[in-house]
Amino acid sequence: MSTIIDQNLVARHNGQLQANLHADYDALAGVLSRRGVDIETLTVHAQQFAVALPSWGAGTGGTRFARFPGKGEPRNVFEKLDDCAVIHQLTRATPGISLHFPWDRTDDPKALREQAESHGLYFDAVNSNTFQDQQGQEHSYKYGSLTAQSAATRAQAVQHNIDCIELGRALGSKALTVWIGDGANFPGQHNLRGSLERYLDSMRSIYAALPDDWQVFIEHKLFEPAFYATTIADWGTSFACAQQLGPKAKCLVDLGHHAPNTNIEMIVARLAQFGKLGGFHFNDSKYGDDDLDSGSINPFQLFLVFNELADAAQREGASFKTANMLDQSHNVTDPIESLMSSAVEVQRAYVQAALVDRAALRGHQEANDVLQAAQTLKQAFRTDVSPILAMARQRSGGAIDPVGAYRAAGYREQAAVARPARAGASSSGIV
Amino acid sequence: MSTIIDQNLVARHNGQLQANLHADYDALAGVLSRRGVDIETLTVHAQQFAVALPSWGAGTGGTRFARFPGKGEPRNVFEKLDDCAVIHQLTRATPGISLHFPWDRTDDPKALREQAESHGLYFDAVNSNTFQDQQGQEHSYKYGSLTAQSAATRAQAVQHNIDCIELGRALGSKALTVWIGDGANFPGQHNLRGSLERYLDSMRSIYAALPDDWQVFIEHKLFEPAFYATTIADWGTSFACAQQLGPKAKCLVDLGHHAPNTNIEMIVARLAQFGKLGGFHFNDSKYGDDDLDSGSINPFQLFLVFNELADAAQREGASFKTANMLDQSHNVTDPIESLMSSAVEVQRAYVQAALVDRAALRGHQEANDVLQAAQTLKQAFRTDVSPILAMARQRSGGAIDPVGAYRAAGYREQAAVARPARAGASSSGIV
Amino acid sequence: MSTIIDQNLVARHNGQLQANLHADYDALAGVLSRRGVDIETLTVHAQQFAVALPSWGAGTGGTRFARFPGKGEPRNVFEKLDDCAVIHQLTRATPGISLHFPWDRTDDPKALREQAESHGLYFDAVNSNTFQDQQGQEHSYKYGSLTAQSAATRAQAVQHNIDCIELGRALGSKALTVWIGDGANFPGQHNLRGSLERYLDSMRSIYAALPDDWQVFIEHKLFEPAFYATTIADWGTSFACAQQLGPKAKCLVDLGHHAPNTNIEMIVARLAQFGKLGGFHFNDSKYGDDDLDSGSINPFQLFLVFNELADAAQREGASFKTANMLDQSHNVTDPIESLMSSAVEVQRAYVQAALVDRAALRGHQEANDVLQAAQTLKQAFRTDVSPILAMARQRSGGAIDPVGAYRAAGYREQAAVARPARAGASSSGIV
Amino acid sequence: MSTIIDQNLVARHNGQLQANLHADYDALAGVLSRRGVDIETLTVHAQQFAVALPSWGAGTGGTRFARFPGKGEPRNVFEKLDDCAVIHQLTRATPGISLHFPWDRTDDPKALREQAESHGLYFDAVNSNTFQDQQGQEHSYKYGSLTAQSAATRAQAVQHNIDCIELGRALGSKALTVWIGDGANFPGQHNLRGSLERYLDSMRSIYAALPDDWQVFIEHKLFEPAFYATTIADWGTSFACAQQLGPKAKCLVDLGHHAPNTNIEMIVARLAQFGKLGGFHFNDSKYGDDDLDSGSINPFQLFLVFNELADAAQREGASFKTANMLDQSHNVTDPIESLMSSAVEVQRAYVQAALVDRAALRGHQEANDVLQAAQTLKQAFRTDVSPILAMARQRSGGAIDPVGAYRAAGYREQAAVARPARAGASSSGIV
Repeated sequence: MSTIIDQNLVARHNGQLQANLHADYDALAGVLSRRGVDIETLTVHAQQFAVALPSWGAGTGGTRFARFPGKGEPRNVFEKLDDCAVIHQLTRATPGISLHFPWDRTDDPKALREQAESHGLYFDAVNSNTFQDQQGQEHSYKYGSLTAQSAATRAQAVQHNIDCIELGRALGSKALTVWIGDGANFPGQHNLRGSLERYLDSMRSIYAALPDDWQVFIEHKLFEPAFYATTIADWGTSFACAQQLGPKAKCLVDLGHHAPNTNIEMIVARLAQFGKLGGFHFNDSKYGDDDLDSGSINPFQLFLVFNELADAAQREGASFKTANMLDQSHNVTDPIESLMSSAVEVQRAYVQAALVDRAALRGHQEANDVLQAAQTLKQAFRTDVSPILAMARQRSGGAIDPVGAYRAAGYREQAAVARPARAGASSSGIV
Repeated sequence: MSTIIDQNLVARHNGQLQANLHADYDALAGVLSRRGVDIETLTVHAQQFAVALPSWGAGTGGTRFARFPGKGEPRNVFEKLDDCAVIHQLTRATPGISLHFPWDRTDDPKALREQAESHGLYFDAVNSNTFQDQQGQEHSYKYGSLTAQSAATRAQAVQHNIDCIELGRALGSKALTVWIGDGANFPGQHNLRGSLERYLDSMRSIYAALPDDWQVFIEHKLFEPAFYATTIADWGTSFACAQQLGPKAKCLVDLGHHAPNTNIEMIVARLAQFGKLGGFHFNDSKYGDDDLDSGSINPFQLFLVFNELADAAQREGASFKTANMLDQSHNVTDPIESLMSSAVEVQRAYVQAALVDRAALRGHQEANDVLQAAQTLKQAFRTDVSPILAMARQRSGGAIDPVGAYRAAGYREQAAVARPARAGASSSGIV
Repeated sequence: MSTIIDQNLVARHNGQLQANLHADYDALAGVLSRRGVDIETLTVHAQQFAVALPSWGAGTGGTRFARFPGKGEPRNVFEKLDDCAVIHQLTRATPGISLHFPWDRTDDPKALREQAESHGLYFDAVNSNTFQDQQGQEHSYKYGSLTAQSAATRAQAVQHNIDCIELGRALGSKALTVWIGDGANFPGQHNLRGSLERYLDSMRSIYAALPDDWQVFIEHKLFEPAFYATTIADWGTSFACAQQLGPKAKCLVDLGHHAPNTNIEMIVARLAQFGKLGGFHFNDSKYGDDDLDSGSINPFQLFLVFNELADAAQREGASFKTANMLDQSHNVTDPIESLMSSAVEVQRAYVQAALVDRAALRGHQEANDVLQAAQTLKQAFRTDVSPILAMARQRSGGAIDPVGAYRAAGYREQAAVARPARAGASSSGIV
Repeated sequence: MSTIIDQNLVARHNGQLQANLHADYDALAGVLSRRGVDIETLTVHAQQFAVALPSWGAGTGGTRFARFPGKGEPRNVFEKLDDCAVIHQLTRATPGISLHFPWDRTDDPKALREQAESHGLYFDAVNSNTFQDQQGQEHSYKYGSLTAQSAATRAQAVQHNIDCIELGRALGSKALTVWIGDGANFPGQHNLRGSLERYLDSMRSIYAALPDDWQVFIEHKLFEPAFYATTIADWGTSFACAQQLGPKAKCLVDLGHHAPNTNIEMIVARLAQFGKLGGFHFNDSKYGDDDLDSGSINPFQLFLVFNELADAAQREGASFKTANMLDQSHNVTDPIESLMSSAVEVQRAYVQAALVDRAALRGHQEANDVLQAAQTLKQAFRTDVSPILAMARQRSGGAIDPVGAYRAAGYREQAAVARPARAGASSSGIV
């Protein structure tokens, strides 16, 4: 595996942190062993974790009010791949890349795939974009894409999705994620049922083009860009549509796409129970689809989501798998730093969920010992598994402190030189 | 049909309002005819409207903090029936009564049914109660009913529902509404999936006891009394469960049981599209399950719900029917007045929805003329159809001004004498 | 007053609608007179209504995902003024224009003012923009403006506000509205108190530059573009800051800038009571700061806001005045049509609020006759005052049907020719 | 200090856990010392922590739907005091008791005070209750208390508060907390401003009766029991009223009394900045005023609140003090267990906030190093300080594992015998 940052630098950086890490790891090993838990098992578990990176996440995001670009932003898919390779090199937790078309369209998918593979990366789900108009596009999506009144517009949007599948096949992807912004800003703008009927018609055409070993993920979102009625607004709609389409259609849960106060971990449990949980877009939020760094606002919720995944894995066995990726907008941080930090936070929740004593939990639940059941989860969540995560990274060849190593390497400064800003350019797309 | 308030008094009261009503009606007839709408058709439509009354709504409600009872509260199901009869006599819009067991349990269903029929009333869906413990009950519902860990508790809850069906059959009902408060107050208290599996098991037993011409309605609610994870929390769960159970199971939408900002009319459209819309509990809310009078907080939303029902009726034809009832808690008003007023508000939305020019609406939608599509709905909503509602009532034998006639009749004062308050009594059910 | 659309065309268009309007007006006059209300008084009241237009509202808005521009968008402040003049010509309800700097910066304020006056328009509050970086700007607002850590950045932002006051003086404005996007995306990013201290320091400098007969309006907003902690997030903060600054500082309420479920009319009442209600940004929303057309989602709420304004006017007398403007983002409609339609909706609420029988309302409140108190408001809201609004427009020289007249005049098509789209241009700014 | 549970039993229970605690404590000491933090300083800090108990919290709570009482519930204030003494004996963190009148009214305050002092307890803020009618009360609070239309009702409510102050003086309290349920269920029910004017009038009379060394805390709440407009609904109103009343009036923040998505820690910062932060009611919530155990739903938020308190303490020095108490409804747990567990969770947040490296945080904030600023908080939050809390308890004479010791002591079983349930009794009041 070829690396972008000098592995010697990473090793030197690790060297400075090594003694403390080992001491902290041993201390935690003791604490866990007094609870009957073997730290080594958890460390191996941590090493098995993976979450995919969104190519667009490598650029600085923005809001409708402004975007404040950073230095050295990637200007094309190959440079985004470089940034993703850095993230994986240091965290060893992000081998998959999720591309977004047409932003990442390339005429040479073979070259792209080879570059990815050289860094130990592969292509996860591909994403279609029918929520923006592209230069030279024949039919506008102003009034909808897969649900548009105009049959020609719908056909264009369907074809774009089929093109994404084709490109994904060339890249080795196995799934298509479909998120549309279609919806209404006014009561009356849409016939609510008519819009969903057109959506299903369009999706059936896309589904028909799906290879046998592919999946299609339906991503719901409560609002934005539509502000009155979003066609695929909630998990109920997503679920019903996935049922209509067939076994290759599943639901994708973005943590920021729900109404206030929604219990998201329960949605996860429901979709798992009914066989339609496809995967996740991880991020965090306080108000809406804020696309903040994973675990930055409500880390306990992230843990509870993984607690459901651990429960599902125990029930379903090896067959249970979800497609997990980060989906964040980095408006005030270095995107590479935020992606590394978020990958670690998601991994943290994954390891903490593995710490839950499920037999004890079941016992408390069966005995209606509510307080101890709650404490069983809290104890796992409270455990600071940072040394496990750091040790897992180091053993897999990554950095004990990814952000520290990244800063020490001066990668951003070098990128700022190699990738001069272009006036008005927004190559990374909007997140 | 025997009436409780002297019809001569109603006639005299109407007499005083007659001239103004006719003038207002004629004025509106002119306005509508200039839009190409025939007022008489709408008046006949209004006369066909019906919404059921909840027996418990006849008593004063309360909150967990306090209940401030009013005068002359009904002390048993026969007195509740009297109050409902008064409401129907004056509004001619509420011929159905929805009973709640065990609150309304009677040893003489035949007598109850005869009393109802003598007033032109019938029994709509019956409601089971497994969210409270009744005196002498063997197993407590503290930790759940249909989802309880204890098989004996679940069996008891199932049997209660089957008893409700039996009692309902004797009364002429054709549906059972199942709302449970089951859920968790703490993360970890429940295995989220396990709870729903037990729910489905229990419901299958109830479903099996359902007569062929009955329906069972699943009512979801986001929270309260459970404050972390409610087993049947959203329409997605309700829908999935109704699917699992079979064609006689449908979903019931209570307008106050959703997360903040939820687009409820879209849920209505979705359930109608997928064949699982069973009916409604009408009320209004600003914060949670506030159980305020229908249309008192957001009348436009109520109209939009009926706009979806009118759309569904146009699509589905005569086969499309929903079970509609009021479900409100009257904490600071006379319950009879609030129920009359709410029945009129729901009827208002029903008539306004019939005023929507659906051909024009479709045209604007197809042309993406968003502004005019929105205005088409707004024009119908803006139309003050009060004269139509009053005329419909009068023609059907009711009161032009139900609250005015009720007050003129002194019904509440008489009830206060006939039904003295009992210390500590809370006969009306839910607080 | 010079008009942009041919007044003869307007007169002809009115001529076609005249007979129906008079019939509808007479019908309503009868209905109202039977309630003891004189329609002519209301029509005069309607003619006195005014709401200001935001210059940026004349362009098509967008979201962070996309902007779908329309035809004939204004390319500079003079063209925006033309569009505003059309709106006022047809509605006679929008004589004020609210400019936004630097978007609307002009080297020739005198010419701008003369053009405005020639159309019977004047300049309302001016708006500063420190939430975006402008080309060539020395210090970036990426990490804040009036609250920035950097003293130089804060000084730049203060100076921009002072420049806005200067420009506003030249244009005849009497108020500055300050909305900042400053805030944090992460817990820890800001010292919450330190940020507000810097805000107050900066605002004191701006306040000091305010002419004696000017006001400064503080506009709060819950979130966006900051997604964790917005410095001026709620009316409490806005109110405390206005107190700190002095009597010329007041609070501005944007209807879309509150937490879910917030009772906005109560905020209006509170600010009026404590002497700090400065004005409004009118729009509507279902989820967040959706910037939808006024009254399109919850018209009853808009009425309740005006009900509080009518109450305050009755209490305070002639001295009570607020600065009112529209603030919407028109993503799928013709901006001119949406602004006309919204001006009419706000005017509708203003007239409906005048219809409330305040003596009767007070009587019901004092008697704790809750139902009749509520019905007193509902009756006013239910009254379809459209004929009053149309008559007021016609009598003031406007159009009976503004959207119809506008379409008949072909203004947009002419603008499309006169103002060809420029690739990549987004002259109207972000709304 | 006299104890209720045998201290030998506690000592024996501690003995079993001692070795593991010392090992865990030493492990943590090492981790912290590698970060430059001295564990002993933190342990002393933890020992200084105190949060008051609400007397009503000792009973089982309920919802408007049902209350499921537990065994051995306290039947009077003396028994509640016993339960509170147990909690303090085991946690050594809850020396203050907050009483609620008239629920806890006693004819012998001297005896009550002596009993409290014998257990090392004192009386914190007293709470008035004008949200319920008491048997034999002359004027009902159905339509309001301090804001009622009726002057006699308001006078009665004012007098009750003055009585509470008198009783509090006899008990050694130094503060009165005023929470009222007053508000409207319908638009129009109240004149919003008139209600607040009456509130301020009433509060001025109460304020006048306040001893010089007392404070009065105004507690706001968004909704419930009023469902449309609550008179004291938000911190802005609370703050404005505290200003009107004078320096002895301050604002009390209950974590569950806010609109969805509200940033509560920012409210804390604002009130601290403007000198009006009086104290807290600690609990947790997911939907509304759920009154769940502290830290059970969103522990990071609880930490962020304490982070603001630590910041304020650093700024204000020794003069900065807030009155802190738990306020929870225990519906499915043993109230004693939940109160112990919550006291520990609040203490945990207090200690974690002390772990924040404030100099580093300030440095990152000044450098706009957003990611590291966020990580500085997260690192403190992630640290599992359980061994510190346990050691602090043990050193102060409490239990290493309070719930374990409590269960081992069989206190609840003994109470069940000593306090037989009375049919229909609900002595603990509603929470």
